[in-house]
Amino acid sequence: MNNDLNEKTATEVTMKLKKINILIPALLITISSSAAFASLTLTERKVPTPAGISNELAQILENRQIAPALPVPTNNEEWLKLQTAFDAPGIEIANIALERLKVTYKEKQIAGVDTFLVTPENVAADYEDKWLIHVHGGAFVFGGGESALREAAWIANGLGAQVISVDYRKPPLNPFPAAIDDVVTVWKEIIKTQPPESTAIFGTSAGGNITLATTMKIQELGLGTPGALFVGTPAVDLKEASDSWHTLKGLDPLGQREGIIEETSKLYSAGEDLDNPLISPIYAEIDTFPPTVFISGTRDLLLSDTVRMHRHLRAADVEAELHIYDGQSHGDYINGIVTNLPESDDAIKEISNFFNKHIN
Amino acid sequence: MNNDLNEKTATEVTMKLKKINILIPALLITISSSAAFASLTLTERKVPTPAGISNELAQILENRQIAPALPVPTNNEEWLKLQTAFDAPGIEIANIALERLKVTYKEKQIAGVDTFLVTPENVAADYEDKWLIHVHGGAFVFGGGESALREAAWIANGLGAQVISVDYRKPPLNPFPAAIDDVVTVWKEIIKTQPPESTAIFGTSAGGNITLATTMKIQELGLGTPGALFVGTPAVDLKEASDSWHTLKGLDPLGQREGIIEETSKLYSAGEDLDNPLISPIYAEIDTFPPTVFISGTRDLLLSDTVRMHRHLRAADVEAELHIYDGQSHGDYINGIVTNLPESDDAIKEISNFFNKHIN
Repeated sequence: MNNDLNEKTATEVTMKLKKINILIPALLITISSSAAFASLTLTERKVPTPAGISNELAQILENRQIAPALPVPTNNEEWLKLQTAFDAPGIEIANIALERLKVTYKEKQIAGVDTFLVTPENVAADYEDKWLIHVHGGAFVFGGGESALREAAWIANGLGAQVISVDYRKPPLNPFPAAIDDVVTVWKEIIKTQPPESTAIFGTSAGGNITLATTMKIQELGLGTPGALFVGTPAVDLKEASDSWHTLKGLDPLGQREGIIEETSKLYSAGEDLDNPLISPIYAEIDTFPPTVFISGTRDLLLSDTVRMHRHLRAADVEAELHIYDGQSHGDYINGIVTNLPESDDAIKEISNFFNKHIN
Repeated sequence: MNNDLNEKTATEVTMKLKKINILIPALLITISSSAAFASLTLTERKVPTPAGISNELAQILENRQIAPALPVPTNNEEWLKLQTAFDAPGIEIANIALERLKVTYKEKQIAGVDTFLVTPENVAADYEDKWLIHVHGGAFVFGGGESALREAAWIANGLGAQVISVDYRKPPLNPFPAAIDDVVTVWKEIIKTQPPESTAIFGTSAGGNITLATTMKIQELGLGTPGALFVGTPAVDLKEASDSWHTLKGLDPLGQREGIIEETSKLYSAGEDLDNPLISPIYAEIDTFPPTVFISGTRDLLLSDTVRMHRHLRAADVEAELHIYDGQSHGDYINGIVTNLPESDDAIKEISNFFNKHIN
């Protein structure tokens, strides 16, 4: 573009625009200077079920309940208790999903790291000789143990792929960079038997964060580069609250950033700067990076984090796809593990296509 | 996916989930049944300037004013008066943009249709032998005449491309399908001198709608298929208010759907069913369709329309890209015509890459 407008001219343009009192973008509707303006406030409203989503998703949204603010634990013992309380229903859902999807697993220590080897009923030909690496979500603190099998089972079944789900070490006992170190350790073992570019790493939320950070770390260590990533609604900025934390609060069952979620960032970073790129990948300088597919929803508290990271990769000319589901909140695409959900199947199709293109 | 869960089992699963009172998505955070839940309401809030946007965009957002509800015209004369009032500042901005970007134009009738031939200072080698077709936005009623040159100049300058901007006939005097007919007429002339697959059609908002509808129409008429489309924040559902009309109201200077915008849909459709696919492209059955790049923002009242159409094309395996800018409202990407705006340059880069891939 010709950006040859000097400062003075820019000011003149701004003045002129103010004078004619146009709204930006004036592309569409412009208003005369006599109109009364409202300030930039979201007023209270009830939000109806979105048009144009599946009946199945509509039913989920109509039974939606938003997480209330819970008291923040004040010591390790309380954090561990909360971890157990949060993960219990997750394990129950994982068991339902495993049974429903006919996915099996076994525990295995890989170079000292706890993992689950997760296998679908039918392994697709493309995935016979490879394992995908799963990094579970759960705000860095939660979502471990068998509760991690929810997303692992979803991908294993959806793609017909064998998945190693890393049960990485977590705060409060093991803060950053323990989780990344654990995934790197598994990565080192994996690439002994399969080419780096033929495998993928994937995860949602904090799992998306660690997927991105681990990829940066293994690039830094010269351990090759995965062939592709699936990064679902990732937390990429633990320092600043991205816009959708503000705009969509009240629509996403995840609740709010203030309180427990914000505290998990502190617990995870354990005094490291929150703009450390391995803690907040949005602050990374990206040079080369593997092809990455992002998924989020228009009611996702991490929508802004997701689109910011997508743009950050695209600015570095990384091959990166963005898929946004209308009306979905944080991680909603995974609900297909417990109920028929067309949007969930659609997301699997996108991930599958993307992996087929880049690693199969 | 194995969707072999029968109805009975599905009910059992639902009951079980209700019993353990998990939140969906339980992937991340799960709550015990004793917690108190809020209902699905957006409560009033002030929304701060988004983290992670350019200083230039931040400045625009901090001076943002939201369009108030204006009285709806009650007859053709009032509509025409409003048209003139709305378009006047748009023409002024177009003139600023043309001067700033060193883009020139001349009026030309093509087979009886009014158009502007828009030429950048330097035509890129890839575009020497072709013209792109521009369909301006403005809620079907507004944005015509020289005010259409805003977006035409943006693309002409950004891509170094020659652009034919169609000054299509509009309501109240010329409702649907006059606009589509006019673009089809221009298309017929264009393909006399350049291969259909080497050109692109593009437009924003109502212009995105007409871009999509015209493409369907020319496919139906057997007049070939454009090589690519750029569809910016399109209005694809004039029948139902997509979710972001509800969730983001108050953040987008476009204002609200109720009132003038809703009435422009009626004026445009003039009694035709609003779910006619040529009026609301989201209701089209898509078989084959040209590669399409979509752009929107997280504060765009038409974010939901945009992502719905992206998914609709993807469901038919159409090559379609989605780029979402954090904090941007309806059509904000075009603000680069009057001020330096990194996000605007970035959008140009995406459109340019996409067109290079598909038509150059």
